Amino acid sequence: MKKKYTIGVDFGTLSARAVVLELATGKEVAEAVYAYPHGVMDTCLPSGRKLPPQFALQHPGDYLKALQNTLGDILQKVDKAEIAALCVDFTTCTVVCVDEDGMPLCMKAEFADEPHAYVKLWKHHGATNQALRFDQVARKRKETFLTLCGDTTSSEAFFPKILETLENAPRVYEKTHRFYDAADWLSLVLTGKETHNPCMAGLKAYWTREKGYPSNDYFRAVHPGLENIIGTKVCEAVARVDGIAGHITKEAAKLTGLLEGTVVAIPVGDAHAAMPALNITKSGESMLVIGTSGVLLSNTENSQPVPGICAQVEGGVFSDLCTMEAGQAGLGDCFDWFVKHCVPESYHAEAKEKNMGIHALLTEKAQKLRPGESRLLALDWWNGNRSILKNDGLTGMILGLNMQTRPEEIYRALIEATAFGLRVIQENYEANGVKIGDICAAGGIAMKNPMLMQIYADVLGRQLTVASSAQAGARGSAMYAAVAAGAFPHIREAAEAYKQPVLATYTPMAENVAVYNALYKEYRRLHDYFGKENNVMDRLYEIYKM
Amino acid sequence: MKKKYTIGVDFGTLSARAVVLELATGKEVAEAVYAYPHGVMDTCLPSGRKLPPQFALQHPGDYLKALQNTLGDILQKVDKAEIAALCVDFTTCTVVCVDEDGMPLCMKAEFADEPHAYVKLWKHHGATNQALRFDQVARKRKETFLTLCGDTTSSEAFFPKILETLENAPRVYEKTHRFYDAADWLSLVLTGKETHNPCMAGLKAYWTREKGYPSNDYFRAVHPGLENIIGTKVCEAVARVDGIAGHITKEAAKLTGLLEGTVVAIPVGDAHAAMPALNITKSGESMLVIGTSGVLLSNTENSQPVPGICAQVEGGVFSDLCTMEAGQAGLGDCFDWFVKHCVPESYHAEAKEKNMGIHALLTEKAQKLRPGESRLLALDWWNGNRSILKNDGLTGMILGLNMQTRPEEIYRALIEATAFGLRVIQENYEANGVKIGDICAAGGIAMKNPMLMQIYADVLGRQLTVASSAQAGARGSAMYAAVAAGAFPHIREAAEAYKQPVLATYTPMAENVAVYNALYKEYRRLHDYFGKENNVMDRLYEIYKM
Repeated sequence: MKKKYTIGVDFGTLSARAVVLELATGKEVAEAVYAYPHGVMDTCLPSGRKLPPQFALQHPGDYLKALQNTLGDILQKVDKAEIAALCVDFTTCTVVCVDEDGMPLCMKAEFADEPHAYVKLWKHHGATNQALRFDQVARKRKETFLTLCGDTTSSEAFFPKILETLENAPRVYEKTHRFYDAADWLSLVLTGKETHNPCMAGLKAYWTREKGYPSNDYFRAVHPGLENIIGTKVCEAVARVDGIAGHITKEAAKLTGLLEGTVVAIPVGDAHAAMPALNITKSGESMLVIGTSGVLLSNTENSQPVPGICAQVEGGVFSDLCTMEAGQAGLGDCFDWFVKHCVPESYHAEAKEKNMGIHALLTEKAQKLRPGESRLLALDWWNGNRSILKNDGLTGMILGLNMQTRPEEIYRALIEATAFGLRVIQENYEANGVKIGDICAAGGIAMKNPMLMQIYADVLGRQLTVASSAQAGARGSAMYAAVAAGAFPHIREAAEAYKQPVLATYTPMAENVAVYNALYKEYRRLHDYFGKENNVMDRLYEIYKM
Repeated sequence: MKKKYTIGVDFGTLSARAVVLELATGKEVAEAVYAYPHGVMDTCLPSGRKLPPQFALQHPGDYLKALQNTLGDILQKVDKAEIAALCVDFTTCTVVCVDEDGMPLCMKAEFADEPHAYVKLWKHHGATNQALRFDQVARKRKETFLTLCGDTTSSEAFFPKILETLENAPRVYEKTHRFYDAADWLSLVLTGKETHNPCMAGLKAYWTREKGYPSNDYFRAVHPGLENIIGTKVCEAVARVDGIAGHITKEAAKLTGLLEGTVVAIPVGDAHAAMPALNITKSGESMLVIGTSGVLLSNTENSQPVPGICAQVEGGVFSDLCTMEAGQAGLGDCFDWFVKHCVPESYHAEAKEKNMGIHALLTEKAQKLRPGESRLLALDWWNGNRSILKNDGLTGMILGLNMQTRPEEIYRALIEATAFGLRVIQENYEANGVKIGDICAAGGIAMKNPMLMQIYADVLGRQLTVASSAQAGARGSAMYAAVAAGAFPHIREAAEAYKQPVLATYTPMAENVAVYNALYKEYRRLHDYFGKENNVMDRLYEIYKM
């Protein structure tokens, strides 16, 4: 029987979503969503045990239930015999620690009350000090891999989270047979075979295709307990993107309802899976994700050091390209903060009366303003800066406030600030010889807010397109599955075959560009002043501790 | 029949308040308040015509209604035959332009739609460029009067507002017979006699007791259209403080209900009238008015140049002292702006539930914070800076914003910013050899908000007292009226006779002083950066005009 379908399962922060695409056309024929019962555990464990601030844990059993439920739903609509392959994508870097049988330690009675035995979600920020130490030692040893991740390790990365466990829960570390990226653990569950996906390994774990992981000397220098970690607690082999992880085992067939032997593709990161879904597969093409935070993923021919970016990987998303990742720590988050804490009663009442959301009302008012009209300028650092300044301690600023300032003006200034922040990233790429070509925007905000998109186009001084990114992660995963099943020779062909129409195109307007160039000059001066010359934001933290 | 009472009428920004004091005791026997129907016109004229930003106009008919209504109320309680005298005080510098009959031009049909024909309220900021020109010419000509007003003319001053009319509404200028301070116009309405009060003339119009107004050469050099202005469109004679302006005319008797012939005292500025009301009448004593804006009025023996203050006048408030004025353009105004535009629904709901005002709720929450806890730092320039930076174009700033920032933290940061702004003024006096002795705080906020007063004491590092300043302007006016009526030889005697008890004393707390010293250092650095080094706030205004 000829196989007709491909499945992608996208594991997000709060839920997983599966889609089934028709192999021949890319048409979506079924979908299912499942919200994790435990959600994000950031205040306490299931036992009630309180968690420190900055913790963000998950329960790995939720992922199994998500597989079981979403695939169970889907297989009511399509015949399991017609499924060619499956691929999962996952928020990165999300770390699971397991025993010899692949069982997560938190699912064993002994460790049920131990925070470090749980899954450390991408936004778990408990490993800040550990990340600093990885950097210090790398600088001291003049390790070259650090230059590929913008000279700084994120506290969200793979090894800091492991070192945090070693230092703060040594028994968990001792009893851990392997630390996995959550996507790779799911591959193990599905296929019984161990795999490491190159997307996570390259972007979050210092791995390069050319040189593999850092040396054992380096890990030992960071902490003696990390000696020989590569090959023991971390599997050394890293798979090739768009390859096959294995086939559904008998046990996994029971869990998922899929046929034993169904192809399972090498997993990918969730934002990265969206790239083929938006047909962003060539060198010089970028995807801008406008969500809670902001991510700019850019394809280039080759790897090269670029200060200020978050990470890069050759062959991590596309086998023949390097993908670079730069980020903005706060984006939709800042707008949500503003709406939650700074918008007066009368605006909520007006929104209610007009039967519209508060974001929509503020946007309606803000889009009546000319660029520069408010005289406001903001720095978009509510969550720190993970772009070229790389300082989590930086904070937001609004300047130009006066008695005439209205909420919609501040709202627009915050949007403009995130656009200026993005322009800093763009200029940083260009200053380092990386050409940023076409940018396609993705994420709910990009699809819903034309004013924001026009501001971004005007500030960047370039055309932006928006493609439908609804379920882009799951669709992209399904494409990787299609390639693994042999339906396409390369993910690029799958992306082209399944591409969806452009939703909108935003072209810079000359009169706005002139104003925003002037405003950006001011933004950049303040960016450098507060980022480098006057460390008042850091000192306010010192005063806070007085 | 022996007269028993004295009346003061205090014209504030939004309303006028009249009080009747018993001449023998200073006891208040009646009062009345009247809110101006047009309030402050800062967005449009009554016709709907839109106003430029920075405009703040009023309708002079509101003042007449205020006289009529407040005196009407009062005279229901006291016999008009027992009124010895009346004095008005007014926000300065508030400029009225009138025809030969003393009729404000805006009340004539021809000019009803002309913004410049209306009253330019003290906080009208349309004359910024004009103020600069007065300064440039004064510097070029080495005019000495400029050193007495801190080397800079405020755009709120008398002559810049007039020049603005000359340049932007030449027909209004041409048709103006006289430009008056609003208080002096009311004197004219009440007595039929022209007067210029020395308080406004000295503090807002370059006049000195020794030398009078600047020379005609100077005015001509500023603008040829100002030639001979003194003696034509501005009356030359300036009265003596605590003198008699005239007596109620027949017409004014109809308007006010007072007896024809009732003594009318020379008017004073509204903050200045409060000084005798708080018994601040001696050299070395200061009054800090914590109101919509902030004013520090300090009595000294003699006049001497102090850069950065707003103005000074010998014989303008007390016939035998010099009174120096330094100011903060935005104070309660900023808090009100915040409450109106930035406080979320849930806070209003909580305040309602607790049956308290929103300021009180924010204060309740803010006073639980330790100094420095919020990591916020603000610049209090919502209305510009009229302190040592003397730049109306400066704007407010908040720094340190993050995802955890709550409204009460911003509220407290705004209060702290105004305290830091005051400390800049205090340090500037001291740096110029003027000793600021005892400070008595006045204004509704000083009386109602112990948290703010403690922050002020902690930031200034000195003890502050608060006297009852309820109706202080009106009470002070009534004292001037009492002197004009001959009940006291000097206003100092009236002040001593009518003084009220101290309400509260605030002493700096050592642990807070240490934190605030550290925060003030950061404030001062940003104050100088945005005030001198980086003129981004001015440039944002240029960009606004692009």
